[in-house]
Amino acid sequence: MTEPIYPIDILRHKRDGLSLSDAEIQSFIRGVVDHTTSDAQIGAFLMAVWLRGLDARELATLTQTMRFSGEVFDSAPLHAFTVDKHSTGGVGDKTSLLIAPIVAAVGFASSPRLAVPMISGRSLGHTGGTLDKLETIPGFRTQLSLKEFAEVISQCGASIVGQTPSLVPADRILYAMRDHTGTVESPNLICASIMSKKLAAGLNGLVLDVKTGSGAFMSRYEDSKHLARLMVATGEAAGTRTAALLTSMDEPLGRFSGNWVEVRECIDILKGIRHPMSADLIELSNILAGWMLYLGGLAATPEAGTALADEALQNGSAYKAWLAMVALQGGDVAAFDDPAALHKPTATRILSAERSGYLAAMDCTEVGWCVQRLGAGRTTPGEPVSAAAGIEMHAKLGTWIEAGQPLCTLFSDDASLIDEPFTMLRRTLQIADQSPVRQPIVRSIITAETLR
Amino acid sequence: MTEPIYPIDILRHKRDGLSLSDAEIQSFIRGVVDHTTSDAQIGAFLMAVWLRGLDARELATLTQTMRFSGEVFDSAPLHAFTVDKHSTGGVGDKTSLLIAPIVAAVGFASSPRLAVPMISGRSLGHTGGTLDKLETIPGFRTQLSLKEFAEVISQCGASIVGQTPSLVPADRILYAMRDHTGTVESPNLICASIMSKKLAAGLNGLVLDVKTGSGAFMSRYEDSKHLARLMVATGEAAGTRTAALLTSMDEPLGRFSGNWVEVRECIDILKGIRHPMSADLIELSNILAGWMLYLGGLAATPEAGTALADEALQNGSAYKAWLAMVALQGGDVAAFDDPAALHKPTATRILSAERSGYLAAMDCTEVGWCVQRLGAGRTTPGEPVSAAAGIEMHAKLGTWIEAGQPLCTLFSDDASLIDEPFTMLRRTLQIADQSPVRQPIVRSIITAETLR
Repeated sequence: MTEPIYPIDILRHKRDGLSLSDAEIQSFIRGVVDHTTSDAQIGAFLMAVWLRGLDARELATLTQTMRFSGEVFDSAPLHAFTVDKHSTGGVGDKTSLLIAPIVAAVGFASSPRLAVPMISGRSLGHTGGTLDKLETIPGFRTQLSLKEFAEVISQCGASIVGQTPSLVPADRILYAMRDHTGTVESPNLICASIMSKKLAAGLNGLVLDVKTGSGAFMSRYEDSKHLARLMVATGEAAGTRTAALLTSMDEPLGRFSGNWVEVRECIDILKGIRHPMSADLIELSNILAGWMLYLGGLAATPEAGTALADEALQNGSAYKAWLAMVALQGGDVAAFDDPAALHKPTATRILSAERSGYLAAMDCTEVGWCVQRLGAGRTTPGEPVSAAAGIEMHAKLGTWIEAGQPLCTLFSDDASLIDEPFTMLRRTLQIADQSPVRQPIVRSIITAETLR
Repeated sequence: MTEPIYPIDILRHKRDGLSLSDAEIQSFIRGVVDHTTSDAQIGAFLMAVWLRGLDARELATLTQTMRFSGEVFDSAPLHAFTVDKHSTGGVGDKTSLLIAPIVAAVGFASSPRLAVPMISGRSLGHTGGTLDKLETIPGFRTQLSLKEFAEVISQCGASIVGQTPSLVPADRILYAMRDHTGTVESPNLICASIMSKKLAAGLNGLVLDVKTGSGAFMSRYEDSKHLARLMVATGEAAGTRTAALLTSMDEPLGRFSGNWVEVRECIDILKGIRHPMSADLIELSNILAGWMLYLGGLAATPEAGTALADEALQNGSAYKAWLAMVALQGGDVAAFDDPAALHKPTATRILSAERSGYLAAMDCTEVGWCVQRLGAGRTTPGEPVSAAAGIEMHAKLGTWIEAGQPLCTLFSDDASLIDEPFTMLRRTLQIADQSPVRQPIVRSIITAETLR
């Protein structure tokens, strides 16, 4: 017979800076899920963890306990190395839409066989969400059952769906509590939240795209790096090969930011059309997909994986995988014939440069908020979003602009929504005589090896 | 128009170690009382305060805001200097039953006039409660309305009652939350809880009896002293003349510990019977009452006040005040004619010394638990308590005992409840060849002057 463990003792131990035992963490999370632990106790726990921190073992146990707090996706019947990518969120970040079909195209018919079970999120605040983008494809279903999810992957090698209510219930409860108790920005709690959800998809490999810069949730490079290290250690402790890339988020990624406009940009790329403004998006997608192929054993190095990824984009195989996945999830692929014809905005305005010079700086979070205010995002979960709204950037940081040349085009379904973001963009997009110092797209890479 | 203050920002500020503004503290407590602040937010707040602390201004504001969170007792119509004593809780601590009549006897007909509006608590855990003791007097009512409370005081100079539901609702909510979130033992939160309730009684003066030693809630001297300093500073900041005495709680105070047995001991003392085992109780009661008389301006020094107090005990005036107060609160004073005849225990056992030597040490908290397990206390609020149960000590620490001499007598209403406390007492009451080093009853005194 084991001694019962009371939440109050767990709270006292963490309050006093002790390391919680595995049994204590498991007991606390069980109480959260079966509602025997009170809200006040959960609030106190989150604050104690925020202030006292967790050591690596506690974090690994918390993550694993949350992962198994509800149903999990059983990836074994796929008979594949399952691999996914997760981004901490940015502006114009649509790499998931390219990476899933790229890895499916290269890996699903290969040996070893790769599969991409991707469970994604929605737009919130200044960042976009993969599900909101996919749902602008007529008929596309993101809310599949785990059975349907497995079915799609087993036919085309990849599927992108939303969280089901039965997956990781502990995170759903803790996340809602963190949101109103001032405990969101804890690296430990962020790591446990992200990794428990990703690991619940039964992954063998995981590539993390941890954003840093003015458009990232964590703008300080050292904070992003700390989070990346925590996530890699936690993934590896759970038996998932994990790598994290710290990437720049100082300006929107690619050409468009919004919902349908981002899908459009990806369709162009998958069709082989390479607009100069999409170059950074293509580069980053290939690098991330290359790491997934490398972790899965299909490439000897990440660089060799990147080359395989780019080939899949260029030879049309990624587009084929994309069409298969969209069709299997109920989407109307006919919409891709003339993407510009769908979801036309009713209001458009061009922001032009007031002077000549280099596009020198912007607050990329502010740009993300402009996209949200045009109608493409939400401030509260559950709010509807516009398919057509968004922005098109006409220049990257460091580009020389002539006075009067367009910097950015704004789209909306509602003309009254354009004034405010237009003013915000005019203020934040800064032109200067000096070219800015630009960061490389990948600033640092964290793997099990670099942690040692 | 003032900006709204959101609980989440208050939580973030305290989390980050900032000093909360008065408006933030007031807003948070308002939310607690009107239930717009969630339980999770209250739990997170308590943990953040536990870990980050409060500065003197924050603590004063928190205490004052809690004090005024509901109804308060308006002491102005009494036209008296209102003064009370509060103890942090001990074993056999019945000083309130002596102090209220002593101060009423000396002060109520004097100029300046003193009055004692005493709002007391109940037994919990290893400590006894004044209300449980008083309720063993047939007919005695402790649940008076504030109007009745004022009425009794205006007629006899003192009244001892229980908390009303309308007084300090913020403390009721926070106290219940602290109890299950592991945030009880915060000096700041303890201070705010005690002082908000005491100050809500509209006191001009307050003497705090802060226990230290093996029977105190805080066993470490430095912790007790820190709490005493916080409470004196908070009382003075609220305009109440406040003094704290750090007193020893290494053995039960006086002769009896229990409910009716403690009332019996006080009746003997008020009648002028001075049993040697009651000497420490009489000494401490006179010292505490002396400080109250000094704060109220009826004595030039605390020592002069102590002499006045002892005189009131010896000349029978304190007994008269006691009889008047008991009668006004519905109690049957005829019960005091032969106190030993009332509430006779049905089971009694004597613990005798197994060897000769000095009574050298005991865990006084353990002794308190024995009293509780005999039926005199409770572990959960609301449980009934026995009037008859308790213990009588036959020796003080440092007394020479012959083998076979009685150390302690146990009383209960239920013979089956005696075995366990008997064994506990035999284990904890230690006899040794060396006389122990004894602490003075008053170890230190904190006043506004000593804080400077």
